[in-house]
Amino acid sequence: MADSKFVYRFGKITDGNRTMRELIGGKGANLAEMCNIGIPVPPGFTLSTETCKFVIDHNMQWPEGLEKQVLDGIKHVESEMAAKLGDSKNPLLLSVRSGAAVSMPGMMDTILNLGINDDVVEAIIAKTGNERFAYDSYRRFIDMFGDVVMGVSHEYFEDAMQHLKDEVGIEEDVNLGADHLKTLTDRYKAIYRHHTGHMFPEDPVEQLKFAINAVFKSWNSSRAIKYREVSHITGLIGTGVNVQAMVFGNMSSDSATGVCFTRNPSTGADELYGEYLVNAQGEDVVAGIRTPQPIREMKKNMADVYDELCQYTNKLEAHYKNMQDIEFTIQEGKLYILQTRNGKRTGAAAVKIAVDLVNNGVVTKEEAISALVEPEHIEQLLHPQFSTQDVLDKEVLGKGLPASPGAAVGKVVFDSKDAEKAAEQGEMVILVRIETSPEDVGGMSSAEGILTSRGGMTSHAAVVARGWGKPCVAGCSDIVINYKTKTFTNGEVTVKEGDWISIDGTRGLVMLGQREMHPPVLSEEYDTFMRWVGTFEKMEVRANAETPEDASLARSLGAKGIGLARTEHMFFKDDRVTAVRRMIVSENEVERRKALAHLLPYQKEDFKGIFKKMNGLPVTVRLLDPPLHEFLPHTKEEIKVVAEQLGITKEKLARKVEALQEFNPMLGHRGCRLGITHPEITEMQTRAIIEAALELKKDDIEAIPEIMIPLVGNVREFVNQRSIVEQTAEKVFAEYNDRISFKIGTMIEVPRAAITANEIAREAEFFSFGTNDLTQMTLGYSRDDAAKFIPHYLEEGILADDPFQTLDKKGVGELVHMGTELGHAGNPNIKIGICGEHGGDPASIEFCYQLGMNYVSCSPYRVPIAHLAIAQAVIKHGERKNQDQAALV
Amino acid sequence: MADSKFVYRFGKITDGNRTMRELIGGKGANLAEMCNIGIPVPPGFTLSTETCKFVIDHNMQWPEGLEKQVLDGIKHVESEMAAKLGDSKNPLLLSVRSGAAVSMPGMMDTILNLGINDDVVEAIIAKTGNERFAYDSYRRFIDMFGDVVMGVSHEYFEDAMQHLKDEVGIEEDVNLGADHLKTLTDRYKAIYRHHTGHMFPEDPVEQLKFAINAVFKSWNSSRAIKYREVSHITGLIGTGVNVQAMVFGNMSSDSATGVCFTRNPSTGADELYGEYLVNAQGEDVVAGIRTPQPIREMKKNMADVYDELCQYTNKLEAHYKNMQDIEFTIQEGKLYILQTRNGKRTGAAAVKIAVDLVNNGVVTKEEAISALVEPEHIEQLLHPQFSTQDVLDKEVLGKGLPASPGAAVGKVVFDSKDAEKAAEQGEMVILVRIETSPEDVGGMSSAEGILTSRGGMTSHAAVVARGWGKPCVAGCSDIVINYKTKTFTNGEVTVKEGDWISIDGTRGLVMLGQREMHPPVLSEEYDTFMRWVGTFEKMEVRANAETPEDASLARSLGAKGIGLARTEHMFFKDDRVTAVRRMIVSENEVERRKALAHLLPYQKEDFKGIFKKMNGLPVTVRLLDPPLHEFLPHTKEEIKVVAEQLGITKEKLARKVEALQEFNPMLGHRGCRLGITHPEITEMQTRAIIEAALELKKDDIEAIPEIMIPLVGNVREFVNQRSIVEQTAEKVFAEYNDRISFKIGTMIEVPRAAITANEIAREAEFFSFGTNDLTQMTLGYSRDDAAKFIPHYLEEGILADDPFQTLDKKGVGELVHMGTELGHAGNPNIKIGICGEHGGDPASIEFCYQLGMNYVSCSPYRVPIAHLAIAQAVIKHGERKNQDQAALV
Repeated sequence: MADSKFVYRFGKITDGNRTMRELIGGKGANLAEMCNIGIPVPPGFTLSTETCKFVIDHNMQWPEGLEKQVLDGIKHVESEMAAKLGDSKNPLLLSVRSGAAVSMPGMMDTILNLGINDDVVEAIIAKTGNERFAYDSYRRFIDMFGDVVMGVSHEYFEDAMQHLKDEVGIEEDVNLGADHLKTLTDRYKAIYRHHTGHMFPEDPVEQLKFAINAVFKSWNSSRAIKYREVSHITGLIGTGVNVQAMVFGNMSSDSATGVCFTRNPSTGADELYGEYLVNAQGEDVVAGIRTPQPIREMKKNMADVYDELCQYTNKLEAHYKNMQDIEFTIQEGKLYILQTRNGKRTGAAAVKIAVDLVNNGVVTKEEAISALVEPEHIEQLLHPQFSTQDVLDKEVLGKGLPASPGAAVGKVVFDSKDAEKAAEQGEMVILVRIETSPEDVGGMSSAEGILTSRGGMTSHAAVVARGWGKPCVAGCSDIVINYKTKTFTNGEVTVKEGDWISIDGTRGLVMLGQREMHPPVLSEEYDTFMRWVGTFEKMEVRANAETPEDASLARSLGAKGIGLARTEHMFFKDDRVTAVRRMIVSENEVERRKALAHLLPYQKEDFKGIFKKMNGLPVTVRLLDPPLHEFLPHTKEEIKVVAEQLGITKEKLARKVEALQEFNPMLGHRGCRLGITHPEITEMQTRAIIEAALELKKDDIEAIPEIMIPLVGNVREFVNQRSIVEQTAEKVFAEYNDRISFKIGTMIEVPRAAITANEIAREAEFFSFGTNDLTQMTLGYSRDDAAKFIPHYLEEGILADDPFQTLDKKGVGELVHMGTELGHAGNPNIKIGICGEHGGDPASIEFCYQLGMNYVSCSPYRVPIAHLAIAQAVIKHGERKNQDQAALV
Repeated sequence: MADSKFVYRFGKITDGNRTMRELIGGKGANLAEMCNIGIPVPPGFTLSTETCKFVIDHNMQWPEGLEKQVLDGIKHVESEMAAKLGDSKNPLLLSVRSGAAVSMPGMMDTILNLGINDDVVEAIIAKTGNERFAYDSYRRFIDMFGDVVMGVSHEYFEDAMQHLKDEVGIEEDVNLGADHLKTLTDRYKAIYRHHTGHMFPEDPVEQLKFAINAVFKSWNSSRAIKYREVSHITGLIGTGVNVQAMVFGNMSSDSATGVCFTRNPSTGADELYGEYLVNAQGEDVVAGIRTPQPIREMKKNMADVYDELCQYTNKLEAHYKNMQDIEFTIQEGKLYILQTRNGKRTGAAAVKIAVDLVNNGVVTKEEAISALVEPEHIEQLLHPQFSTQDVLDKEVLGKGLPASPGAAVGKVVFDSKDAEKAAEQGEMVILVRIETSPEDVGGMSSAEGILTSRGGMTSHAAVVARGWGKPCVAGCSDIVINYKTKTFTNGEVTVKEGDWISIDGTRGLVMLGQREMHPPVLSEEYDTFMRWVGTFEKMEVRANAETPEDASLARSLGAKGIGLARTEHMFFKDDRVTAVRRMIVSENEVERRKALAHLLPYQKEDFKGIFKKMNGLPVTVRLLDPPLHEFLPHTKEEIKVVAEQLGITKEKLARKVEALQEFNPMLGHRGCRLGITHPEITEMQTRAIIEAALELKKDDIEAIPEIMIPLVGNVREFVNQRSIVEQTAEKVFAEYNDRISFKIGTMIEVPRAAITANEIAREAEFFSFGTNDLTQMTLGYSRDDAAKFIPHYLEEGILADDPFQTLDKKGVGELVHMGTELGHAGNPNIKIGICGEHGGDPASIEFCYQLGMNYVSCSPYRVPIAHLAIAQAVIKHGERKNQDQAALV
């Protein structure tokens, strides 16, 4: 290692650049990069990650040559700063920071003001004329060094401070004078000596060596190891160490410190946006002692420096091709840039900035799409929102899961019927339930928003709400709901029926009262941006929708078809459920057919409604999926009422309910298993679809039905159902003396279906991966029950993500991969898509693109997000080999 | 096709042999084979399956040359029989039968007596002097030919017969005289003419051509297609047609017909066993008109023919290397063998015959093991049985699933407590429940047998009963149980508490009263046979057992260890469940640990009991698996009682029960998910296992625990639990100042575990495939609910087998395959086994052997069956490449 390079300088002379993250860490690479493009950064040097590895591997022994390189590094900084470490006239102070290739909060904090000793503190006083500042810096340095480098608990130093304040009768730190702080410095040194057994090191180089070793050691601290474990960070060899000259914004009245964005992060407007404070340190701003000024004031007061700053912010934005969030310090009139990073922004700002940067020629459309707008930005734009201010300022009743984004305000109701009644009278309500079931859909649809105290991101409430773009906070366990008293409480505040609340489904918050909402207005820039996105659409986006309203919304948001229309949702509407129940309690096929005949006209009208809206676009209709018991009442009272409606005894109905009960409904008598044991259901649904399409054809409306068989696990199940569908369709064609063309395909949602996809593909025209159920079965997680352990798993790092939100690539993804490959092997012309919750998740969409799928289907409100995710995937991975095929969809 | 061979002769001149099943069908190949070894078979010829294909493909056009070959075939038969088709003196009659490569009941039935016409019937009368016989044969031929060949419904002929009987005032067919039958013959011809529009063909060759074409056509009859579909028979091209000389056992007093076995099929004794009837046709025996005589009488009455018969039966047994079931006919003193096939036999006979045939040098041990004893034979031997006679003769109350083999007799009880009480008083009871739950184990263990009206082959009742070798009939839906009145009924008979019933778990039958049982006595031959089997044991057999009694039984039946000890079963015993419940209702970890501490000594004693019995052999202990709510009461009354026991309010307990309730417990908070959220449970169980082993070590008993983590789906779950186990073990080692060695492995029962088995294998020492749960999740079938559709699926041919009985190779098997391959890839030293229900299923065992597994684990009573299945697999597939590794287990 003797000839190795351990130390990489930055400043006017710079050895590194942005590509060297692995070697010198992210922070080191960024500092070097800024220097390379002529940004005035306080000079310094970085010890490489390889150095860290060597030192750790050799029991903290430094490799030959490292010491000399560090000393040379110090000389480099001294020369550029025209100051000297430990000098009694013009002393240089240093900061020491860790910095691995990946940002890692588990590692060592910063050490500031390194280099102070008894001589240097005098020099600082002489130079700044500020004795208080000098001793405050000194005692802080001893505290930090003792705590972070030597492991002397910060509490000892705090105690000493408190002790002194008691002695002199002062309550606030800021009221301590220079003398007090000088005394404290001595006492801190004594504490240091007492706990370490050594004198506090006066030699700045020794201080630096200690600090560097402390950073190295922190790489293997249990906190850092745990962090890497939980975050699944692997393959890194160590951390870099950044040693940098300190600069001070509080040295004089021509010193200052500030933060700015290169554009307005709320609106995206092209203006420097930020705050600064004269003769101050960053800490002063944080401590709230003084109020910073808007950056535009700087233009008046420090015009030259302001111009210089603008020059650098423009340069940085152009270089990083993104709006920047910049920290700077002015020391005695000289401007230093301390840090730059991509700035956080609102959805509106993101889109405007992206479009502006493309129009200004700073970035290409590809760059704007991949780097400047995130799916969350688009999501933000599509829903009404509370302002950030409003949410943070006011009291929050409870936090739950951000189950469906957007803001909603309404009066509390606890019952679906009440919600419907209130809505009829024009009232705005929030439906508050422990959890929702299919019987609540009426109330949910009438409410402005939904709040549940139980259930996860894919609970019934969450899925339905997202589907409708209706704000929902789910699983808010902070509140306890009491249906009897019609109240809920968070233990402190009790909310009654009729009280106003506001829910923020984007952030998962519940607030008291009526908060102000901002409706979404889609800007011109949004249209422009989405047009650009559209040019990269190499995979079709469809929507999950089962009402004409949803279909219409989906189409307006850019859906190219319906990928999943769940027919069972239609079964709950109005008095249809009575017909469904009559079908279920039928003693024989004849009775069952009679009940189904009653349902036929309803279903046909449903399909007509959707087909009309989707005129000319395909509509995938999934045949009945849930187990029949979901349509039956469960409590004694409900059974009594329903039995009367059906004209049978309550005992008979109770027996039927009992007989249909299942231990694990998820794995029970549902999906195509129903259609196989009750072929008349499949016949009725097929008839409704085909009759609807034929009748619309007379009005020149083109319906393109794709009939989807659910829960197939065995090709013979599919063949059985396909033949019923085909025979029924032929019968209807004969009756109408007319034909339409339609497709028959299947869900791939049972693991066995993915494993035997080649067999199924030989018989089917399309596959739609139902990754909700596939996730449940592959992982063995019931999504209705998994809330009992998934949060714990996420906390412990056993799971990196909730698998119901982001596709589990290794497990479920492998089955999707197998299913896609085997599917194409069995039938090269098969059309393959996804219609689970993951169809709207950007990471999962990218995965589906890579697998060569033809389409994704998601909630209407996620359609634009899916468009963006596809464009990003196309730009990242290039066009696919089988693009021709995908284009055939 | 002109030069093709379409026709294969058999008789003294024979063209085919047993290897030609594909070409000339199974029946044709067998007839040829008998002829080849000099057995006197009535001569004939077979048209090949290729001929069938050609004719069907060419719209029933015969290929060039076929007619000539058929005519040559006729000449061949005429020459060997010294008779002539259609001859008016010495006429030859023929039979025509279908026969594909695989036996297929969906195809054409036999046509007998082909060749009769008005001339021939006179010749038969002249020859036999039996006019009645002649006309009976003639009218039967017209009926058969009309129905089978020409599609004239048999009913028309039946009507004519009835009409005639009414006319002449005769009630029974047998009382019709020759004249009546002659008249009937004329009327049959008229019916034939009326329905076909043709005269009945007088030309025997024409008759034959019609019959051959009818057989060809029957290949594509809807019945045959459906049969092939349901039985999943594919790859066959057509059926053969067998044309054979008729011989008559009723031609004279030196004619006879009979059936015999080469050995006694009940006992296996080496003696000719069967019946015969002089001057009779097989039909006479079936019709019950005359009673056949034991075959030993033949020795006295027809000594020469008897000797000849013995010569042929010996030859056939030696040739087919198996006990034969033979049909023969003697026509005027000449013996013909009509058919031979392997004879059905009892388990006892199978074993004796196998051992005898090996000792006689007829077969090798390999042949005896692979072909002469089936797993079901061994199973029969291990359980008490009702005689077949007894079961068939007496009234059966209902049929259910043969859930656990063996016979049981007892008084009906409907409650587990009652069963326990009765057993204490020495009474024999049958526990009758709608279904059983873990709380019933006490009663189940006290009962002689178990009968349930709900649940499948893997319901709780079935699994527990099989594990104990206790007879069980499950899912007997013929009966309705009423707990209130303490009765059950099949709609006709009502059985009260205290009534005697008998259940046959081998056949799934429920009978009234006390039937006689035969206890199992294992013969010397059994021991010999199993010793031979043992020499082929290239895969270890372990048992699933969790009590010392079961462990002991398993060891006595040849188990080489315990492959699955379910710890939760121990939790239900005695008053432990109270401690378990206390643990569950604990408010915090401290309380929970207190309750667990109370359980520790119980668990330790449990493990000691098993370890002692298995001294020196490995015991795989699975940590707690079921969801906690399984331990809690559910009805209001139970909750009240249990709340008192626990000293908490019933409201609190009810809330806990409510809170733990799950929608899909199968996919819920169970398995390692419990151990991860409640690490103290894993700690307690580990401590009990390790302390037990260490304490036994002092008494020189060697415990070899293998700790198994259930329901792992993610390697990080395994690592989490492994580290708790390891840390706890080290703590105990320190406390005892002693160590033992043990292994830590996991169940592979979640699809994701199989898919990511390489990752898991890198951390684990062994895998045990839990194919019960793996089947549930891979197919999406809840085994508690699937009875609602699996029977229908089996009926419709959607499923070939119940996947909970026979491993679904294509789906679940593919995951087991992946899991095994990936497991070996991740860790070449990993030990892999199976412990689901399939561990005792021969077909699944063969599959596991092929995959290279190291062991199977099954119920104690299935251990010998598994031994046999392994030996059969080894003989069939040869030893495995990785045999060294398997031997290391």
